[in-house]
Amino acid sequence: MPRLVDKEETMTTIGFVGLGNMGSGIASNLMAGGHEIVAWNRSPGKVDDLVAKGARRAASAGAAFDAEVVFSMLADDAAIEAVIVASGALDAARPGATHVNLSTISISLARRLEALHRERGLGYVAAPVLGRPDAAAAGQLVILPAGDPAAVEKVRPLLELFARRVWPVGDEAYRANVIKLGCNFALAAMIETLGEAGALAAAHGVDPKDLFAVMTETLFAAPAYKTYAALIGERRFSPAGFAMPLGLKDVRLALQAGEEKHASLPIGSLLRDRFLEAIAHGDGELDWSALSLVSRRAAGLEA
Amino acid sequence: MPRLVDKEETMTTIGFVGLGNMGSGIASNLMAGGHEIVAWNRSPGKVDDLVAKGARRAASAGAAFDAEVVFSMLADDAAIEAVIVASGALDAARPGATHVNLSTISISLARRLEALHRERGLGYVAAPVLGRPDAAAAGQLVILPAGDPAAVEKVRPLLELFARRVWPVGDEAYRANVIKLGCNFALAAMIETLGEAGALAAAHGVDPKDLFAVMTETLFAAPAYKTYAALIGERRFSPAGFAMPLGLKDVRLALQAGEEKHASLPIGSLLRDRFLEAIAHGDGELDWSALSLVSRRAAGLEA
Amino acid sequence: MPRLVDKEETMTTIGFVGLGNMGSGIASNLMAGGHEIVAWNRSPGKVDDLVAKGARRAASAGAAFDAEVVFSMLADDAAIEAVIVASGALDAARPGATHVNLSTISISLARRLEALHRERGLGYVAAPVLGRPDAAAAGQLVILPAGDPAAVEKVRPLLELFARRVWPVGDEAYRANVIKLGCNFALAAMIETLGEAGALAAAHGVDPKDLFAVMTETLFAAPAYKTYAALIGERRFSPAGFAMPLGLKDVRLALQAGEEKHASLPIGSLLRDRFLEAIAHGDGELDWSALSLVSRRAAGLEA
Amino acid sequence: MPRLVDKEETMTTIGFVGLGNMGSGIASNLMAGGHEIVAWNRSPGKVDDLVAKGARRAASAGAAFDAEVVFSMLADDAAIEAVIVASGALDAARPGATHVNLSTISISLARRLEALHRERGLGYVAAPVLGRPDAAAAGQLVILPAGDPAAVEKVRPLLELFARRVWPVGDEAYRANVIKLGCNFALAAMIETLGEAGALAAAHGVDPKDLFAVMTETLFAAPAYKTYAALIGERRFSPAGFAMPLGLKDVRLALQAGEEKHASLPIGSLLRDRFLEAIAHGDGELDWSALSLVSRRAAGLEA
Repeated sequence: MPRLVDKEETMTTIGFVGLGNMGSGIASNLMAGGHEIVAWNRSPGKVDDLVAKGARRAASAGAAFDAEVVFSMLADDAAIEAVIVASGALDAARPGATHVNLSTISISLARRLEALHRERGLGYVAAPVLGRPDAAAAGQLVILPAGDPAAVEKVRPLLELFARRVWPVGDEAYRANVIKLGCNFALAAMIETLGEAGALAAAHGVDPKDLFAVMTETLFAAPAYKTYAALIGERRFSPAGFAMPLGLKDVRLALQAGEEKHASLPIGSLLRDRFLEAIAHGDGELDWSALSLVSRRAAGLEA
Repeated sequence: MPRLVDKEETMTTIGFVGLGNMGSGIASNLMAGGHEIVAWNRSPGKVDDLVAKGARRAASAGAAFDAEVVFSMLADDAAIEAVIVASGALDAARPGATHVNLSTISISLARRLEALHRERGLGYVAAPVLGRPDAAAAGQLVILPAGDPAAVEKVRPLLELFARRVWPVGDEAYRANVIKLGCNFALAAMIETLGEAGALAAAHGVDPKDLFAVMTETLFAAPAYKTYAALIGERRFSPAGFAMPLGLKDVRLALQAGEEKHASLPIGSLLRDRFLEAIAHGDGELDWSALSLVSRRAAGLEA
Repeated sequence: MPRLVDKEETMTTIGFVGLGNMGSGIASNLMAGGHEIVAWNRSPGKVDDLVAKGARRAASAGAAFDAEVVFSMLADDAAIEAVIVASGALDAARPGATHVNLSTISISLARRLEALHRERGLGYVAAPVLGRPDAAAAGQLVILPAGDPAAVEKVRPLLELFARRVWPVGDEAYRANVIKLGCNFALAAMIETLGEAGALAAAHGVDPKDLFAVMTETLFAAPAYKTYAALIGERRFSPAGFAMPLGLKDVRLALQAGEEKHASLPIGSLLRDRFLEAIAHGDGELDWSALSLVSRRAAGLEA
Repeated sequence: MPRLVDKEETMTTIGFVGLGNMGSGIASNLMAGGHEIVAWNRSPGKVDDLVAKGARRAASAGAAFDAEVVFSMLADDAAIEAVIVASGALDAARPGATHVNLSTISISLARRLEALHRERGLGYVAAPVLGRPDAAAAGQLVILPAGDPAAVEKVRPLLELFARRVWPVGDEAYRANVIKLGCNFALAAMIETLGEAGALAAAHGVDPKDLFAVMTETLFAAPAYKTYAALIGERRFSPAGFAMPLGLKDVRLALQAGEEKHASLPIGSLLRDRFLEAIAHGDGELDWSALSLVSRRAAGLEA
């Protein structure tokens, strides 16, 4: 994976909006690749580290959009609405700029953003990522870009700077968001499955870790299962790699995407109920794998 | 993996009860390992092939229990009750015989069998297996034996004859059944998850195969996901590797195991409803992965 | 409602099997109507009161079946199996006797009992009842008899002795059991609905009683709603009018009846999970309306 | 119930916004009570009938708010937002006016409206109604007003003009909305319960009407059960008294209200899934009681 700008490549000026745990790791990798970063964040303090490494500070989200390529990594639809749409940032974008939106957002907003960019002659690539903050910092994310193929090709070398794998998933941006929501839905369903199966085992006096060991070395020998079975088996929920309310948010996005097309997701509905119950119980600051405690408590087991 | 009796080993006389798709493959591997098989099956025709290969035909289940080691691979609790308990086969067992029960059964029957063997001075090893008939024939099953350690050690060389891996899971036989039920529950939950996520994608015009490709090469790169995502993505449900009613049976066993300890399994409850709906729709002879059609139909998609 | 045998009527000798809270009230009303009772109960102490009022004590269930009409009011399928089928009581029945089975049982057992009586030339009327022990004692039950019309007509005057209303529901006995299970399923669903709606109100600072008052004087002005809204609104769950495990049992019967015909009951599945959770939490001795506490706890409300 | 302005009463000028099936019946009753109506509707054609009866046509929603009392009966949150908030109608309100909002809206909007009126010195009464269009036309609604007691008392004589019963439910307006959502949630849960119980009966060859007859004359002898059991028993779903998407909307409002306080509503989640499935199947224009067809189809019964 290339980490430095090739002799033939031109350095690109990259706007970057949203420097949370994920965004700051990604922006650092883009800088390490030899590109210039113009950074903006709602809490300005988060830009300091990047500036110390040589990034420029943008005066506004709109100023960050005055760049050849703009990356955004924001928390949710509301943040995108506020920071990029309502703020007028898109109207301030440099002509011909391409916006790479790494955020996990709703399908309806994904479609709307596609249209808003098209109307302004801007490029738009949805590029949701698989991976947690440590993978972002290590440049080891899986990135699922979708959008106009020319735009995807244009930004692909930049994506490679922080990717383990760049996997284009279609010519329409929203497709990437559908796939991202599908993946996160499946992760949450897996957590609930491990929670229920683990509680069943524990109720019969079998350590869930014994069950999980068999599962994750045979049928379910996959990264996600190994990671989450370890967290759940050891009840190690803090610090949160991905906090409960974010899990609820993503399940809600999947449910909304289903509702838009009248596709029911009964496991999604169950997950929503379980997240609410976990948060009502006071576990909102734990990792979303603490959803498994709901099953333990329901079975009368020590949680 | 050894396929022949070592010079130092003694040939063992092995009773074998239950020669369906799984049992006949396993018995063949035991014979190929140099052991003598005394076989019995409710439908006697199924014994013919094995007899042609050199096995002896037992006149009754009880006669098959007149052996040093007896394997059983029966369909469900009712078959075990009829063939092994009510038939008096246990009372006809050779003194000191060890019974290796490969069947997927309820936890309550598992506990009862443990006691019935103990009362008669017989060894009892629960040894449920992970793998489909082709793995049984190829001697590539994962076997999860549990029970008295001496008994497990005694039969382990025999288990190795048809195993990819022999994985002892405890000193009490029922523990193996808990783990087996947990694995099958997780498989069914995975099928439902893939069904819902696939229907969500399809409702938005994204081919489920595109979603599954990303999933099974990244987060969910596990054998079970690869196998079932392929079946569901291609809607290839016939011939059934594991038929719908067997899936319902295993979910019911998990629910019963939960009920015994007041552990609710909401995904299990959902799965039960979905299996019933699939069977009511006429899909009872398809592979259990056809559960995914329930989600497609619910979303108004062509099934 | 007649309480005494008419001059034209003959006194009937009535066997009575099962003298729990419901049965003893009913038997007393039959005696008050001028009939002779021959009573049997598994715990013989429960017969004492009735004997003190003039009933005869039967030496066995079979002896109680040596009567013109036999009533049974037993807890569940297992009790019917043990007391009436396995005991040989049916074989000891007086030729031409008619058995009125008041118990709430499974549809499959209902069908089997119909056949067992037919084979022996005995009359069989399924007559499940609506009402709690106080209504039984007061002779105010709703009775839903079904079976051969001649048999129903024969026993109808006896049913009138403890009924507010006798409502024949068909020529095949099992139909009464289907209707009884449907009613109890609807009651449990109502309890869960009140529990969830009440928790929603409480979470918003509205006393559930305020919501229930509106409901039970307008849209839901029905006896069941009034009774249960009062219990749930005041969280008055002890002493149990109908204990949690009985509620679970009846939901299980509905689920089994559905499974027999591949009819899924998603609310039934949910109810099963909720009952298990309530019992796991230690509420198994409370009235089944305490199911509403599951919703309160899930919402983080004081239970 | 008074239908004419008392000699002592002053005629009130009443703004009326939203003249759909419900609103037009209510406005007619207010006019019949001797009051002057200034009417506005987004589709202006709907005002014609009322104008023919003597109402004045308002040029805008804001013009309708230039009145002593303003009633609104709009479809959902979005309509309220557009017609009353974003339009500036509140800013055009006559000083001291009282707004009576009959609409079924979200709890969060209810709270926001309370604040918006307070800031402007306007009275605000939430007054959701129970009853269908025929009851609105006949002046037979149950009305649940809540808000500042003085405001409620001020408008109460007007409410009496179209009410069977006026039932104040608290000093804070949002409380009325909580109770309204609770009632509609319970109605939807009842429909689903009848659907499942009816399908269970039908699967066993028992006409659901036989089950419903017993239910609605005994335990569940309530108006809502009688109405909906008749619709479901006869499968009479068209014309829609309350169309499927409105049912989905109200369930969604209940779920949102729960989510706001982390109160899960598992029956609500199930209802949402069932409504989506019904609409996906093409039943979106039927009465919401057609939700029962989902249970029939799931059981393989003719729908």
